[in-house]
Amino acid sequence: MIGYPTKRKAYIQTESKPSTKRGMNLEEDLNLTNQYYLDLDMANIHKKPTPITIVKVDYPIRSKSKITEAYFKIPSTTDYNGVYKHRAIDFEAKETQSKTSFTLSNIHLHQIQHMESVAKHGAISFLIIRFTSLDETYLLYIDKFIEFTNNHNRKSIPIDWLRQNAYLIPYSLTPPIHYLKIIDSTYFKE
Amino acid sequence: MIGYPTKRKAYIQTESKPSTKRGMNLEEDLNLTNQYYLDLDMANIHKKPTPITIVKVDYPIRSKSKITEAYFKIPSTTDYNGVYKHRAIDFEAKETQSKTSFTLSNIHLHQIQHMESVAKHGAISFLIIRFTSLDETYLLYIDKFIEFTNNHNRKSIPIDWLRQNAYLIPYSLTPPIHYLKIIDSTYFKE
Repeated sequence: MIGYPTKRKAYIQTESKPSTKRGMNLEEDLNLTNQYYLDLDMANIHKKPTPITIVKVDYPIRSKSKITEAYFKIPSTTDYNGVYKHRAIDFEAKETQSKTSFTLSNIHLHQIQHMESVAKHGAISFLIIRFTSLDETYLLYIDKFIEFTNNHNRKSIPIDWLRQNAYLIPYSLTPPIHYLKIIDSTYFKE
Repeated sequence: MIGYPTKRKAYIQTESKPSTKRGMNLEEDLNLTNQYYLDLDMANIHKKPTPITIVKVDYPIRSKSKITEAYFKIPSTTDYNGVYKHRAIDFEAKETQSKTSFTLSNIHLHQIQHMESVAKHGAISFLIIRFTSLDETYLLYIDKFIEFTNNHNRKSIPIDWLRQNAYLIPYSLTPPIHYLKIIDSTYFKE
């Protein structure tokens, strides 16, 4: 957790840095960012727990049940959701090592259908995609993503297409991934 | 899963029945209800996975990692959230065996603070409380809950107060707990 000197104090936004300087993965950056939004009462957005199937639980001491057999489940929804400026927020975050494209199979079909559905019901829904080798992180709205899959018979999204159709999230210190700034300047722009 | 004869067909709403006839707990009823909302494309609301801390994972076969040590975590948010009519929905559901009151310690302080926060950011936030012995299920908006805790120095909410300040959700067959009907007639009434 980052110690903010005083709440609502202007924070320093830095230029994008080599990822080796940061040592944080996308999930950690997003957790810090969401905590920052909570601390400053800007939004309430959380990562959902990892979906698992619990098979066996031991109760050696009643106060601390121990799960001894469980399996990861394929997620049917997204990893992150919450509320911002009276709108539901719902997104999935993915990292790739590629320098040229984002492979579509990184996202499960159920997750895409989920994002389409929540957007239809009024949520702001998007993907956050980080190219770790390039140190570039993009916000791609779900409608643009669907537009891509409808118009291209490809198994991956080229980075050049993303540079045209998604929004680069500049890296900053506090918070690391200030994606709500992109939402403000695009979704809430009018 | 219930097999709906045809989508959007009118469904039969029945009178409240003794719970012995039903054999379903609140979580099962809510899962069926949320699935019904999804199937009819009315709303997109899900139960979040149970929050756990994973300590040890075995990888006997790479395709099926086995969690061999994990513990339940105290939830810091609510169990259910999603989106309905362009609003974020966020709620917690609890059952009690009591016939007279709902014990406040059933809800963690962090969950109350979370519900206050999301309501402030614009979510529709509430508790669903079922008195299993009475077969009565209530929807209590978070602002009413806070009002109760601010004005009463009690460790439980008497059922008579709930009957005045919360909304009884009638039991129906499909869906079992049609809580969005209450939201429609109260939150979206004007």
